[in-house]
This record gives sequence, C-alpha cells and structure tokens, in this order.
Amino acid sequence: MKRLLLLNGPNINLLGKREENIYGSFTLADIEMELKKIANENGFELDTFQSNHEGDLVDKIQQANSKYNGIIFNPAAYTHTSIALRDAILAIDVPVIEVHISNIHSREAFRHQSMLAPACAGQIVGLGKMGYRLACIALMEQAKQ
Amino acid sequence: MKRLLLLNGPNINLLGKREENIYGSFTLADIEMELKKIANENGFELDTFQSNHEGDLVDKIQQANSKYNGIIFNPAAYTHTSIALRDAILAIDVPVIEVHISNIHSREAFRHQSMLAPACAGQIVGLGKMGYRLACIALMEQAKQ
Amino acid sequence: MKRLLLLNGPNINLLGKREENIYGSFTLADIEMELKKIANENGFELDTFQSNHEGDLVDKIQQANSKYNGIIFNPAAYTHTSIALRDAILAIDVPVIEVHISNIHSREAFRHQSMLAPACAGQIVGLGKMGYRLACIALMEQAKQ
Amino acid sequence: MKRLLLLNGPNINLLGKREENIYGSFTLADIEMELKKIANENGFELDTFQSNHEGDLVDKIQQANSKYNGIIFNPAAYTHTSIALRDAILAIDVPVIEVHISNIHSREAFRHQSMLAPACAGQIVGLGKMGYRLACIALMEQAKQ
Amino acid sequence: MKRLLLLNGPNINLLGKREENIYGSFTLADIEMELKKIANENGFELDTFQSNHEGDLVDKIQQANSKYNGIIFNPAAYTHTSIALRDAILAIDVPVIEVHISNIHSREAFRHQSMLAPACAGQIVGLGKMGYRLACIALMEQAKQ
Amino acid sequence: MKRLLLLNGPNINLLGKREENIYGSFTLADIEMELKKIANENGFELDTFQSNHEGDLVDKIQQANSKYNGIIFNPAAYTHTSIALRDAILAIDVPVIEVHISNIHSREAFRHQSMLAPACAGQIVGLGKMGYRLACIALMEQAKQ
Amino acid sequence: MKRLLLLNGPNINLLGKREENIYGSFTLADIEMELKKIANENGFELDTFQSNHEGDLVDKIQQANSKYNGIIFNPAAYTHTSIALRDAILAIDVPVIEVHISNIHSREAFRHQSMLAPACAGQIVGLGKMGYRLACIALMEQAKQ
Amino acid sequence: MKRLLLLNGPNINLLGKREENIYGSFTLADIEMELKKIANENGFELDTFQSNHEGDLVDKIQQANSKYNGIIFNPAAYTHTSIALRDAILAIDVPVIEVHISNIHSREAFRHQSMLAPACAGQIVGLGKMGYRLACIALMEQAKQ
Amino acid sequence: MKRLLLLNGPNINLLGKREENIYGSFTLADIEMELKKIANENGFELDTFQSNHEGDLVDKIQQANSKYNGIIFNPAAYTHTSIALRDAILAIDVPVIEVHISNIHSREAFRHQSMLAPACAGQIVGLGKMGYRLACIALMEQAKQ
Amino acid sequence: MKRLLLLNGPNINLLGKREENIYGSFTLADIEMELKKIANENGFELDTFQSNHEGDLVDKIQQANSKYNGIIFNPAAYTHTSIALRDAILAIDVPVIEVHISNIHSREAFRHQSMLAPACAGQIVGLGKMGYRLACIALMEQAKQ
Amino acid sequence: MKRLLLLNGPNINLLGKREENIYGSFTLADIEMELKKIANENGFELDTFQSNHEGDLVDKIQQANSKYNGIIFNPAAYTHTSIALRDAILAIDVPVIEVHISNIHSREAFRHQSMLAPACAGQIVGLGKMGYRLACIALMEQAKQ
Amino acid sequence: MKRLLLLNGPNINLLGKREENIYGSFTLADIEMELKKIANENGFELDTFQSNHEGDLVDKIQQANSKYNGIIFNPAAYTHTSIALRDAILAIDVPVIEVHISNIHSREAFRHQSMLAPACAGQIVGLGKMGYRLACIALMEQAKQ
Repeated sequence: MKRLLLLNGPNINLLGKREENIYGSFTLADIEMELKKIANENGFELDTFQSNHEGDLVDKIQQANSKYNGIIFNPAAYTHTSIALRDAILAIDVPVIEVHISNIHSREAFRHQSMLAPACAGQIVGLGKMGYRLACIALMEQAKQ
Repeated sequence: MKRLLLLNGPNINLLGKREENIYGSFTLADIEMELKKIANENGFELDTFQSNHEGDLVDKIQQANSKYNGIIFNPAAYTHTSIALRDAILAIDVPVIEVHISNIHSREAFRHQSMLAPACAGQIVGLGKMGYRLACIALMEQAKQ
Repeated sequence: MKRLLLLNGPNINLLGKREENIYGSFTLADIEMELKKIANENGFELDTFQSNHEGDLVDKIQQANSKYNGIIFNPAAYTHTSIALRDAILAIDVPVIEVHISNIHSREAFRHQSMLAPACAGQIVGLGKMGYRLACIALMEQAKQ
Repeated sequence: MKRLLLLNGPNINLLGKREENIYGSFTLADIEMELKKIANENGFELDTFQSNHEGDLVDKIQQANSKYNGIIFNPAAYTHTSIALRDAILAIDVPVIEVHISNIHSREAFRHQSMLAPACAGQIVGLGKMGYRLACIALMEQAKQ
Repeated sequence: MKRLLLLNGPNINLLGKREENIYGSFTLADIEMELKKIANENGFELDTFQSNHEGDLVDKIQQANSKYNGIIFNPAAYTHTSIALRDAILAIDVPVIEVHISNIHSREAFRHQSMLAPACAGQIVGLGKMGYRLACIALMEQAKQ
Repeated sequence: MKRLLLLNGPNINLLGKREENIYGSFTLADIEMELKKIANENGFELDTFQSNHEGDLVDKIQQANSKYNGIIFNPAAYTHTSIALRDAILAIDVPVIEVHISNIHSREAFRHQSMLAPACAGQIVGLGKMGYRLACIALMEQAKQ
Repeated sequence: MKRLLLLNGPNINLLGKREENIYGSFTLADIEMELKKIANENGFELDTFQSNHEGDLVDKIQQANSKYNGIIFNPAAYTHTSIALRDAILAIDVPVIEVHISNIHSREAFRHQSMLAPACAGQIVGLGKMGYRLACIALMEQAKQ
Repeated sequence: MKRLLLLNGPNINLLGKREENIYGSFTLADIEMELKKIANENGFELDTFQSNHEGDLVDKIQQANSKYNGIIFNPAAYTHTSIALRDAILAIDVPVIEVHISNIHSREAFRHQSMLAPACAGQIVGLGKMGYRLACIALMEQAKQ
Repeated sequence: MKRLLLLNGPNINLLGKREENIYGSFTLADIEMELKKIANENGFELDTFQSNHEGDLVDKIQQANSKYNGIIFNPAAYTHTSIALRDAILAIDVPVIEVHISNIHSREAFRHQSMLAPACAGQIVGLGKMGYRLACIALMEQAKQ
Repeated sequence: MKRLLLLNGPNINLLGKREENIYGSFTLADIEMELKKIANENGFELDTFQSNHEGDLVDKIQQANSKYNGIIFNPAAYTHTSIALRDAILAIDVPVIEVHISNIHSREAFRHQSMLAPACAGQIVGLGKMGYRLACIALMEQAKQ
Repeated sequence: MKRLLLLNGPNINLLGKREENIYGSFTLADIEMELKKIANENGFELDTFQSNHEGDLVDKIQQANSKYNGIIFNPAAYTHTSIALRDAILAIDVPVIEVHISNIHSREAFRHQSMLAPACAGQIVGLGKMGYRLACIALMEQAKQ
Repeated sequence: MKRLLLLNGPNINLLGKREENIYGSFTLADIEMELKKIANENGFELDTFQSNHEGDLVDKIQQANSKYNGIIFNPAAYTHTSIALRDAILAIDVPVIEVHISNIHSREAFRHQSMLAPACAGQIVGLGKMGYRLACIALMEQAKQ
C-alpha cells in the first residue's frame, strides 16, 4: 500500500492555542485527522510526526527514503535557516511539498525566504489548513502515475 | 452562477513551445480547457485571459471586482517587478491565488521574490499545471462557504 | 491659450473605491473637475488622461512636448520602477511636477524611492488631493513668467 | 488668531550667499517676509526661526505644540540624519510640512532619504522658494477646516 | 505559589570553565543557587533548566505557558539565529526577559542582533551575573501587580 | 529570402530631438533607412518596429520566431527592468543582439545592468548608430553560415 | 558621599505627554523623583539632567569624570547616530548603563542598533521605567564593591 | 594513550547513498574504519560519533575537553549557521580541524562561509575522504610534540 | 594681516586625558600654542575654537567666511555623520583642511568614511599632532600665493 | 599610414587550448592574422600584443598615445578589477573598444561588471572572434573621418 | 618521473622575517627544502617558484600544463582578488591545492573569500607549514592512482 | 646618511600629460627634483622609483627594509585593490606615508577606500604636489628623533 508522511516542525503542536489571528483556530490533531481521512479515501496510508527538534526532523526525513511516496512538510521556523533539512531532502528520492499555513510573504522579512524550497517539489503558501489538503492531493496524484 | 477568472501573464501563451525542460510540454489551451472542465463540474463558470501587457492585466483585475469569486493568476515575469499589479490586487475584494508552474526558488535569484504574493490570498509554486488545478479547488471551496 | 496636462497612472481610476484609509474618499473625476475649474479661473486649459499602461503614459508625455506648459503627474505604481517614463520626461521641455496623494515615505520600503523625481521639476507628497492643486498653482505661476 | 511657524535648519541663513546654482539668489529674509505677507492676508500670524543647532530645532518643535496650527519646516542637512527631530514631530499634534528648495533627489545619494518625512503630514521638494508658499497655503487651508 | 523559570542555552553549563575574560569565574550552579535564594526570599519558587539543544529549549518554553509567572532566559548562541525560540516565546503568555552576561554589542558583528528580543518583554545586556538578578527582580515585581 | 528585424524600445522614436549630447543628432528614420540599405545590399530583407510599450515588444519578439534570421534590438529603458522581454528572447530560436547607442556604463548606476544581456547572443554598447550596423553585419554573417 | 547621574536625551522631557502607547503615562519628573528616593535610601546622591542638545550631553558626560560613581543614561534618539556621545563615554572612567524605556528591537529598523552600547557597561531595554531602577541598583551595587 | 575524536554532522550518515556526484561513493563506515586504522598504526585511539542533532554535537564537543588530543570535525550543514558549535569549540582546549568532503567554495553561496572556521585550528576543503586522513595526520603530529 | 582658524570638534578638549594609546599624551592647549607659534613666525594670526556642539561648529565656519585665509579642522566624531558641517564648508570660500590625529582607517569601520572630506581642500590622517602643523604649513603657503 | 593595436590580456594566449565550450576552438594567432588581413585590406597597419601582466598592458597603453588610431582591447580577467588599466585608458587620446569573446553577462556575477568600460569608447560582448572584427571595422571607420 | 610544483605568491619570500605571530618563524627555504625531501622520498621531483608578480604566477601556471602532476599553491595576497590566476587554473588540467599558512578566516574580512578556491581541487587553511606537506601528500597520492 | 624613498605607482609617470584638471600641470620629474632638493637641504638622500607593475612596487618595498628611514608612497590605482602592497608594508619596519595628489573622496566611489591606509603611518590627500612635500617633512622629522 502507498504511504504518505505528514511532517510538522516547531510550534505547530500549539496550533489553535497560539496567535489565532495568524494561524486560525484549528489544532494539529484536526489537520492530522483530516489528512488521514483524505488519504484513506484514496487508498493511501498517512503517518504523522511533529517535533520541535531540527535533528528529529532530519532523522525522520532520512528514514522516509524507502518508506513513503511523498512528504507533506511544514518546516515552520526551520524553513528559513535549516541547511540540514535542505540536505536531508536532497538526499532522498521522495517528493516533498512544503506547506505554510500563513502567508509568509506578508510577515517579517526573515520569513520571506525558504532555505528548503529549492530542494522541494513545490511549495504552497498562505491557504490555511487547506494547504495541507492540496499538498496531499498533489502527492497522491503523482504517486498514482 | 459563481465565476472564476484564469489569468496568465507574459509568454505563458508560448507554453509547450518554450523551454520544455522548465515548463513541460502542455499548452495554455490544455490548461484552460482542463480548468473550465473542473470548474463546470463543480457548478462554476471559468473565464480565461492571457496577455503580454502589464496594463491589460491591471485592467482585467480592476474589472474583476464585482464579477468573479476568485482569480487564479500566473503573473509570470511581472511577478517580480509589478507594483501596478500588486496595487490592483489590493484594490479589489476578489481573492487571488498566485500560481507558478516551475519552482521559482530553484531558478535565478531575481525570480525568488514576488512583489504580488503579499497582496494575494496564497501562492502555489513548482507543481506544474497541477498548481492551477489546486488553486481552482481552493477558490471554489472558499467560494462555497 | 496656455494648457496644462493632468496625468494619472495605474489604479488611480479606482480612487474612492479603493483603500480609503490610504487614499481618501474622493474620486478621480472629483480631482479632474476641481483642477479644470482652478485652471480655467486662471485662464488655462487643462486636459486629463489616466492609464494603467506604462506605454500609454510614455506616448502621452512624448506628445505633450509642444502642446502643454506643464504636466501634473501622479505616476502611481510606475513611480518606483519606470525608467521609460523617466527618459520620456527627460526628453521633453515641459516641466513636470510629480504628485503623490499618500505619504509614500511612511509606507512599504519599495515606495520610498522615485525613479522619476530626479527628472522632474519638483515633487509633492502626502497632501491628499490638495497636492494636485498645489502642483497646478506652481505650474501656472511658472508659465506666466 | 491662528498661527503658523516657519522653521529653517542649518545653513539656510546663508541663502542667496551660497551655491546660487543650487539654491537661487533670494535670501532667508525674502522668504520670511513673503510668507508673513501671505499669512497675514489670510488672517494668520506667522513666526519664524532659524538655527544651525539640532537641539534648538527640537526645543522649538516641542514648544510649538499648543501654540501653532502648522509648521513649515526646511530641516536642511538634518533631514537625512536626525531621529531627534523625527521624534519631536511625532510627539506633537501640529501638522508639519517638510520643504526642500532644491531637488534633493537629483543630488548626492545621501540626500535622497528623509528621516523626517514619515513623521510629517507631507513633503514639497524642488520648487524653490515657491515650495514654502505652497506649504503655507496647504496648512492655512487645513487649519480653516 | 508563584513560580519563575531560569532558562539557559548552549554552553552556559561551562560557565567558569570557559573564556573567563569574557564570562567571569562564577559557575552556572552559582547563578542558579543565587536566584533561587532571591526568589524564595520574595515568596517565589524558581526552577532551572539548561540545554545545548534548541528543541529542548522550545519544548520547555511551550510547557511554561500555564506554569510560570516569568522566564529569565539566556539563549546564548541561539539568540542570533533561532526563529523557533522566537515563535515559542510569541506563542505563550508568560513574560520573558532576555539576559546576556557579556556585552554582545562589543563582540563579533553576528552577536549584535537578537532574533528573540522583539518577542521578549525586555533585554538586559553586559551586566554579568547581576543581569540575571535584575531580570528576576523585574519579573517578581511585575508578577505581584 | 532571409530577413532581419530591427526592434527599438521606448523613446528611441525621439532620437535627434532628445538629449543630443548623449544620443547624437541622427533620427530613428536615418538608422532604419541605413540598415535596410545594408541588409538589401547583402541580400536580406529588414523590417523595423519601434514601441514605447513593453507588451508590444514582447508580442513582436514572440512573432519573430519563425519569421526572422536575427533581431537587432535596442531595448532602451526596458533593458534594465524587463524580465518579460528576457523570457521572450529565451523562448525563441532567433539570435538577438542587444544594442545601446550611448555608453550605458558611464551613465547612472541603474543603467549599468542589463536584464536581457544574459539571454542575448551578444551586446554592443556605446558606438552610436554604428552599433546597429555592426549588429546587422554580425547577424547576416551568422545567417549565411 | 557617592553620587550617581541620571542623564536623559532628546524628547524624554515629553514623557507622559507623548505616544503613551509606546512610552507609558509616567513623566520624567516621576522617574527622577523615584530614582532620587532609591538612591538616598541606599546612601547615594543622585543628580539629574535632560537635554535635547547632543553637545550638552557630551559636555555633561565629560564633566562627570571625577564627580560620579555611575551614569544611568537614556540617550533616546541619539542612541542610534551619536559617535560624539560614544567617544565621550569612552573618554571617562565612570561606568554608564544605557536604558531604553520601550523595546527598541520591536520598532523601526534604525532603532535596533546602538552606537553607544559597545562603549557602555551594559544596556537595559524595554522594561519601562523599571529599567531606570534596575540600572540604578546595578550601579550602586558596583559602586559599593 | 592518546585519543582522537572523529565527529560528523547531519546527513553524513548517508554518505555513499546520497548525491554521489558531489560526495563520492564511500560510506561513513569506510571513513571511520580507515581513520581508526591510521590512528592505531600511529599509536592513537580514535572514537567516532555522528549525529543529525546540533545539540548532540555541542554536548560531544564539551565532553571532549579532557578526553581527546584532537577532533576531526565535519560539521556539514551546521558549518554555515551554528554559533553554538563555534562557542563549544572556543570553550575547550582541544584543537579541532574542520573537514569538508566537497569543495564548498564551488557550491551555493551560503556554503562559502563557515561560522566555525575562525574557532578551529585549521580547515581542509574539497579533498574527498582524503581530507579526513590529512586532518588525522596533522592532529597526530601536533599531539606528539 | 592674514589669519587662520584652528577648529576642533567634540572630545578633543580631553586630549592627553583620554585613550592615550590612540591619541597620545599632548593636550589641546599644547597643540594650540604650537600652532600659534608657527603661524606667528610666518606672519599669520591664528585663532582657536573647540566645541562639543555641532551647531557651534557650523556657526563658527559660517562666520569664518570673510575673516580667515584657511581653516585647520579636526571634526572628530562629527566627521562621519555631519551633513550640516559639510554644507557649511561648501558655503564658504575659505579652504579647509581636515585633520585626524589617529589613523581612522585602522579603527572601527564607521570611522573610515568622512562626510566632510569631499568638501575640503584636503585631508591629513594619522600623523598625530604633526598633522595639524602640516595643515598649517599648507594653508600658509597657499595663502601667500 | 594609420595604425591599430590589438591588445589581449591574461590567458588569451591559451585560446583554443582552454575551455572550448566557452571560448571556441580558434587560437590567438588565428585572430591576430585575421585582423591584420582586414586592417591591411583597408589600408591600416595592425600591431598585436598579449600579456598576462597588468603592468605590461598599462605600459603598452601609455606608449600607444601618439602611435595608434585605435585600440582593440580584450582585457580578460583584468576587466573586472584593474583601475590601473582604466586610468591608463583615461590618460590617452586613442579610442579603445573593449571586446569580450564570451557573454560575460551569462557567467559568474563577478564577470558582469567592467571597471574599464566607462573609460572606453565602446564595448562588444559575446560575439566570439567576430567581436574583434567588428571593433576593428568601427575603429577604422572612425579613423577615416 | 612525476613532478610537482610548489608555487608561492607575494611576500611569502619574507617568511620568518615578517609578522612572526601570524606566520611562524620558519623561512620559505625551510619549506621548499622540506617539501623537496618528502617528494623525493616518494619518488617525485619538486620544483619551486616564488614571485611578487601576479603575471609571473599566471605565466608559471600556464607553463605547468604538460609538465607537472600537481601544484601546491599559496597565492597569498592574490588569493582574494586575482581573476587572472583563477582563469589560469581553470585553463590547465593539473590539479591545484590552495594552501594558507595562517587561518584566513580569523583575520580581516577581505581575507575570508578566495577567488581561486572554486577553481582548485581543494584548500588547506591555518595549519602552518604542515599545510604544505599535507597538500604534497594529497597530490602525490592522487598522482599515483 | 639617512635616506628616503619616493615611490610612485601606475600612470604617475604621465603627470602633466594627463587629465590636467584633476592632477595639475607639473610632471613627475618636477616632483622628484623638488623632493630631492628638500631632502638634501635637510641632510637626507632621496631615491625615486615609479612603476606601473604591482609586483615591482612590492619588490621595492621589500628591499626598502634595511635601507630607508621612510617611504613617501603614491600607490595610485593600486591604492584601492592591492592586498599585496598592504602586506609588503606590514612586513617592513620603515614608516610609509600614503599620498594622493587629487581628493580621492570627491571622485568615483571606488576611489574612496584605501586598502593600504590601515598599514601606513599616515595619509595625505588632495593637496596636490604639496602633499609629497608634507609627507617628506613628516618623515624627516620623525627620522631625526
């Protein structure tokens, strides 16, 4: 059976409890449940993982190599600084789509640049939790081909 | 009936005839037909417009104000320089999703920054023609709420 | 009889319908009528032109050369990027005064610099529609000398 | 009776004796007399002050708070460096219009940026001594409302 | 009972064993004991935590949300690069005071900027271990109000 | 028969009437006539087109694809800002030589960089109207091979 | 008897009358009274001085050399530009602690850098009027050693 | 007996499985075995450690202080961003030689600068796995003196 | 009789009491006496003035216009920031030679650039108090011609 | 008889043996022979000189002053750094045309800027060895006038 | 027999006589002798060359092409500015290892960047004269393969 | 007997024949003769050397070490780029005074910075050929001490 990985970076575990004006009122559990449901309906398994530790995320991406058909990844704060995550994505063959809940381009200047985007298959920005769903659709469609 | 506008900027009319390694082999007509079909299946009308003229695109966005429920917009080369398009998007109430076929973040440095993104509802990058479809899905869902 | 040209750039046609907190509630028609009245009272003709097209504005400035005693010009978004407009202003002998309704210096950084100002006779910033009137007064006085 | 303050910064006392190709042949006394006359004709008092001392100008702006209906201010060299003047303008409720005799945008790069403009009601640049008159007209009109 | 958290970042565990000319000869244990004593004397509990792991510090800050009345935080090397810590501080309601033992402004250029300071209640720099005490006093006073 | 296109950008239609110290006293008609003559003598047709509109120039370049053996292009002001023209040149197979009448490297800093040059076959700068002739010679020779 | 100097820069005399959302509602007199009280309770004299003139502040710092055991200094706007104040601080042996009422790191970019901090013993930022008190405590403790 | 530590940063565990055109086909185990052999032949013990976690690497360096005569360190992605690793190296007395398998100076711009190099004894770049061996030779020679 | 002015900026009054390793052990009085003596021996009068106030220095330069044959000026800290002093020097006909006791080019980066040098006749840097004497010799020689 | 000088900078002597994908397969001897032939056919003498030494090229340009009617100069690597060559060109009256075989604008960023171009009569870029011929034609035509 | 070239740039001939705290007390002759010995012991010839002239070094590198199996090169001051040396290295097939005696990354900022490194096989920094030996070992090993 | 060296860099041999508006009408021979005379009158020998070759100037400075009591050096174009000359000056014990005939600070931006000044004893700028004389006086005085 085909599998996807939903990977979330630092502070995403606080969704719904944190800066609601920016991130909305849904929780990480809501997103994970919603994506599992969509995946299952399309005949996919979907695993989830969240960590505040850059190293944990690197480990997880490395292990994904032979295990998943795609990764939906919101790297959060590490988006803008982590070369380690970029290198991990470059080192595997699994397509990664970078997702950002808020519109990073209308926030502080240091959030405008992604160190990971050049290594990803694509990037979806500013569409709230719908962004995760769109990434999921895209990866499932690609995996079917 | 609800309506969407598919707007494409300069040189997108050459799709399929130009730099296939970057943009793929599908044509603009393919994309327009595919999006009309998806829109119709969901009970939406979808109009299309392409121009190489910045002013034409500004005019079109201004006229969209009372006419459309969403705009799928690939501003192409004007992405990186047009304040006029940014101001036009700011001046209307219709949500705009910016789409880029190629991964602009893995190309020349001047393609990394979008002048329009901060004024848009969201941005989808690097997912080929699937990006248009995802933007279409997102706008239709939002319009139904 | 002496003549002035009131020239307005992209999105100024939306005045009164757009971001009222920045631009106020008056329309372009209000400004044009008011300036015609002031001009006529002082024995001047005043023509008006607005376009969202950089090329149209360049054409108009070129044609102004033997026809007008002064140009009141709000280049809007093209202020910050158009070398073509700068070259057109340099190429004619008619004095041009650059007008901005809002205070461009308290907005986004990219609005702080004008590519046209060095080629203009002067610049009036942030005084709302009064700025147009002051520019008109200045050009009429200069034309009478 | 309503009152205006005409405030001039460093080296403006040398007008007419200094770099005539840039600043013209009129003196500061000429400008002060002309503005007093215009103010009086419109039922306003106009006080004048010039200093080469940043601190004196800050003091004067602070004292203007309950005393004047508007300030016409040519900060000259302090335009480009003085945060103290910016803070003083922000701290009072009197509208300030920044005036520059020469076109600062066609001179050395360090003269292109104004530290004060974001705190001012508006800015008039490059129109010679007429700039002072236009600022005076604008402030009187605003004060009448 | 009211509680404070004393949080220290990477390499602070080496205090007293490392670069004494910059950081002094006291140890982390000295600081922790001293602050516990001050806190207790004022009727506060004070917990302490030190880690070289960015993720551990993010975890700790997240958990502090309902548990502490204030955090005294020396982020050390992560001061200048960690957006994850900034986001964690923004996500909680506990006031955080950033403390630096040495004067970061008289050291290498990359130590001059703090990514966290804009998210903190305040910042105390260069006052040696006294800086921790001052932060403690400030948070206790604020917590009493 | 082999064909060349002579393409001129904004304000080049004012040649001979504008800033003669920079651009010389010849007109655009002079250049067009001279190049047609040279082309004809070498058995080539030469078409000419000038526009102040970026979009028109993009359209023209797109249409040149199957029609011309080379394009002599003075993009004037658009040289320094137009990514749309760069993309158009990249999208066709016709070699383009960029020509500048004046020495752009001894003028304002913003004229030193060409957005188009990396996409062109070559660039000829500062040799007055002779530059057009040299570009014509180069393209004809290349077309004969 | 030991003495401290409380030194305040431009516009601090307007505290309580100016931008209360940034600076709070207390006045300079409140702060001066509060600090004198704390100093006296600890057996110190405390003198106060405020000026809008950079030169006056330089004079005062120079004269402090043999007279005070510490200076609590809020340089306000001169923080970011004054090399003269930096040199004066470097030239004396009295420790200076720089205090900022507001969090300068969450305001305009030009307020993020202090020209004086590298020459000071320390810096306290963003803790309101409590910052003055903490600086006072620190200097008194140091003076007692 | 004298001891060396071979320390490798993030993604080095993927050597031989990742971007072979950049990093070659040998594995981390190959390198570790080869270095142990060289060390032993010269009468040294050599321990090895690899981690994707910045904090783990900081911990390891701190613990090396009294334990090793030298560290051969490939910090990989953390080379360019980690101030925590730099501070850890500064805090110990063990000489560290930074090794990079690929030529970081011919790759992306962000890989050209090392935050750690100024704190290291030396740096060896671009010589493949031979770089590790050279670093080992250098440290053993130095340890014998 | 011909006259020279020796002008010194902020903190120069502390010479001999301040940072001797940078500025030497001589006092301002020493320099003034030495220069008066040299001037007198050559048939010149020499006046001296020192101030910590930028405005005072501007006033003094303005008044120098018809009174002196040359100004020896050490602007000290104002060297790097004062446009007001630059404008004052540009406004008079008296030649000014800028003198720096220490080698500003081997100190902090912000001391490398002089805002005044482009307006001065020349600049002498790093030669200690001999620099004043050389400037004096140069101005006297020039005044004799 | 009229004379031209063909001057080539460092590594041009390796043409045909070096990076053929960038520079083509012709040798320097080929170019020199071809240009001599063209020159002779038009009644000109043409001398040639190549050196890897910046000083030799400066010497040669200085000596050209009374001897040649024009210089065809490919400064190669010295293009981007040599102020000495720029000054030499400025010091003579002979027109110099700068030639680059490859398109320097599509190579590394440091090759985009020419220190010499502002001092030259013109610049021809990217047209292979044809560039030399075009420069020769241009200089001969100019010399005949 | 296989041959190596030891190439040293400007001021390396002063080793042992110059800034010993940075470069150590050994002389260039010491290094040359030591490397010849190592080379001979491994069955290699080693030639040496030192020059203060950029052009001489370019000449030498060009001539090395068919003559040497590797170059050990300390370009000294030319490291940071010479494009001519970079081009020469690119033009030959002999592997070059760049060596720096001191740690260039802990010195002035302009010494941090090497113009040559991207063209070299590798770079060894900060290991004193041992760096030359390591480079020699690496080149001999590579030459044997 | 004590000796001085007068060293001149590229294109100084053209003095009097080149850009007289910038450099004046005197020749290098005039300067050399004048300085020899002054030196002799004060009991010094003065040697002279001029070269367009950076390497020659480096050689000359190295050889000066035991031979001269001071060097008067106008490095001309190499001022702004030569690290080799800077290193040579640092490597000797002879004091060097850098002289520039013209005011480099009022010319092109790239002439404002000197790579050599931080290594020199002092710098004299903009005083024409008098600058050489002042440098000579300063070095002779210093040599007598």
